[in-house]
Amino acid sequence: MKTVGIVVEYNPFHNGHLYQLQKAKEEARADIAICVMSGNFLQRGEPALVSKWSRTKMALAAGIDLVIELPFAFSVQKAEIFAYGAVHLLNALNCRYICFGSESGEIKDFQDSVSFIKKHQFQYEKYIKEFVKTGMSYPSALSKAYKTLRPNNEWIDLSKPNNILGFHYMDAAAKINPQLQFITVKRKNAGYHDLSFNETNIASATSIRNQLYQTGITDVIHEYIPKTSLSELQSYFANFGQLHSWENYWDYLQYQLLSKSSSELKVIYEVEEGLENRLIRAAQSSKDFQSFMKTIKTKRYTWTRLQRTLTHILLNVHKETIRSFGNEPQYVRLLGMSQSGQKYLSAIKKDLEIPLISKVSAQQNQMLALDIKATHIYAHGLAEPYRSKMLDLDYRQPPIMM
Amino acid sequence: MKTVGIVVEYNPFHNGHLYQLQKAKEEARADIAICVMSGNFLQRGEPALVSKWSRTKMALAAGIDLVIELPFAFSVQKAEIFAYGAVHLLNALNCRYICFGSESGEIKDFQDSVSFIKKHQFQYEKYIKEFVKTGMSYPSALSKAYKTLRPNNEWIDLSKPNNILGFHYMDAAAKINPQLQFITVKRKNAGYHDLSFNETNIASATSIRNQLYQTGITDVIHEYIPKTSLSELQSYFANFGQLHSWENYWDYLQYQLLSKSSSELKVIYEVEEGLENRLIRAAQSSKDFQSFMKTIKTKRYTWTRLQRTLTHILLNVHKETIRSFGNEPQYVRLLGMSQSGQKYLSAIKKDLEIPLISKVSAQQNQMLALDIKATHIYAHGLAEPYRSKMLDLDYRQPPIMM
Repeated sequence: MKTVGIVVEYNPFHNGHLYQLQKAKEEARADIAICVMSGNFLQRGEPALVSKWSRTKMALAAGIDLVIELPFAFSVQKAEIFAYGAVHLLNALNCRYICFGSESGEIKDFQDSVSFIKKHQFQYEKYIKEFVKTGMSYPSALSKAYKTLRPNNEWIDLSKPNNILGFHYMDAAAKINPQLQFITVKRKNAGYHDLSFNETNIASATSIRNQLYQTGITDVIHEYIPKTSLSELQSYFANFGQLHSWENYWDYLQYQLLSKSSSELKVIYEVEEGLENRLIRAAQSSKDFQSFMKTIKTKRYTWTRLQRTLTHILLNVHKETIRSFGNEPQYVRLLGMSQSGQKYLSAIKKDLEIPLISKVSAQQNQMLALDIKATHIYAHGLAEPYRSKMLDLDYRQPPIMM
Repeated sequence: MKTVGIVVEYNPFHNGHLYQLQKAKEEARADIAICVMSGNFLQRGEPALVSKWSRTKMALAAGIDLVIELPFAFSVQKAEIFAYGAVHLLNALNCRYICFGSESGEIKDFQDSVSFIKKHQFQYEKYIKEFVKTGMSYPSALSKAYKTLRPNNEWIDLSKPNNILGFHYMDAAAKINPQLQFITVKRKNAGYHDLSFNETNIASATSIRNQLYQTGITDVIHEYIPKTSLSELQSYFANFGQLHSWENYWDYLQYQLLSKSSSELKVIYEVEEGLENRLIRAAQSSKDFQSFMKTIKTKRYTWTRLQRTLTHILLNVHKETIRSFGNEPQYVRLLGMSQSGQKYLSAIKKDLEIPLISKVSAQQNQMLALDIKATHIYAHGLAEPYRSKMLDLDYRQPPIMM
């Protein structure tokens, strides 16, 4: 069986994702589509709109055959680490193809960039360090370093979020398994951060989320997400009383920042360069998450970098803990599967080099313990009785079959 | 001027407190009454019903001349440390008399017990250790040790909470300043933990709080607290939208227990003997503070000892921090004063051996920083906009004049 892998967050699953999935299967002539999906907290350092189980159902309903969780240790990370973890899992699952959406749409541009940077690695990294020192954010420094090395390059814009991810998927594959093949699907209509709806039936996840936060699950979004996603959102809302946003966790984040000393904050992953004092001061005077973010934002840190750091504070994740994990995912956690997915899994199971986890047991490794903690904290953003309900369900939840 | 000191929590100030205050002034023939009062968290390991400022107003309205805050480092502590801190402050303020309520009512019984125990110190402590080893709580061990040494003693029952405190006030005074004189007022009608109202107009603070939690500020309590206390409670409720109980902090306590590892919990003050694992497990399965307490309660720890430990967890107070403070309060923080109190303070100011603090400034010592943190966390039990309002007020709050 031919397999195509994609790296996703599905927050929520929308028509653009459906388009990408269909294109991916088509171009890879794949029988099986596997997605590696971030759990309850996402790469942008945000809680997902709905839980990983709910998003797993959306994925399966739309034609994904296997949903695998990207461990928290890789999901709430900069593009490089996020991509490395995801590609590692897709490779472990024996995917031949990996497909990603991009602003560019031309796979040879990516191949070319990866090999160009490999050739100029030393100078590239030197530029990055130089630019970061001037107070530039890391992603801007990356993009500027590339532009500086290649002033007349018109092939690829490495400041676009999906291009950056694509680049890192291919860069990771070069290290993990050079046999991996890549496909890229040009994103249709919607830019990653686009805030407005447009005439087509594809809108960015950002604009869909904004609409959901502002008006709830109304008719407006019907056009932009599959019916199955819509009914899943409705059922989630009925079951847990809300959709999740950072505002639901603000009380805890503020509390954490008020109860910890600056030296305790310094041991948290990604809290660097005196950021701790800035965060403590801002926490004392902010009334909600949005105003807190505006207070702490500087040119040096991107919004997403700051949100990731705050997620690590919210979960109390220490530098030492992340360091202890090493560079690779230690298990394949199965969230859901179709019947074909199940057959595929049976076929490749014996060759899996890391354990397949279908249910959380008392015996846990530390990386998995962090995923469980992420679920605990995610559930904590709900009021009772929903909070306990989510935790009860989560412990008993076997992979979703569809 | 003759001065009488009392150690209080006024949670809330009720008729029994008024009776004690009048008796104290009368018996000491005092011109000035000074109280040392716990701040926002109390000796039983609970948030106060209303803030320290509100309780200061109740105290002044009832005839107290100076309200001094007992630092958090001494207020949320077992009787021995609590008493030592309070007596130290009253002595620093040049009180000649200290008055306390007791179940006994006979000061010579206390004098006698203190000197008896001093004589048998070694055996007394040996017994305590022995009894604690059998799984008995510390206060029960204390009381049993005394009874074992003095089987036919009928003078004083050291298992009664106010007798215990009285004993420790006198024991502390013997170390701090043997010139201090003591008066005890027999508690009228209401036992410390009595839950029911009775025909007189004196009821325990516990029963008054229960009534307030159950039915709000209704007519029922009018009989048991002075009018000034009642209107202060009403004004607090109008200003901050609620009265405080542990349930308002349960979300944060649970979150703290879910986000910290057991080794991080072990550094918290009073988390001993593997209690951390018990707390973490119970936090995962409890829906509210009361059910959590029932899950963790054992014979070994009293309810109040557990609540104190939880308060230290809530405030993230480390063993090392408390150890670094040494044994004595480092300042006199003035919360409120009458005109006579102000005159008295001017007269004795030059002789004060520790700094008098009238307003929190940016320059803080660590013991004071903990009081400020306690206010932050106390305010965090309020929803916005009340939370920010309380913090704003607190930073600008000069001592209350009445």
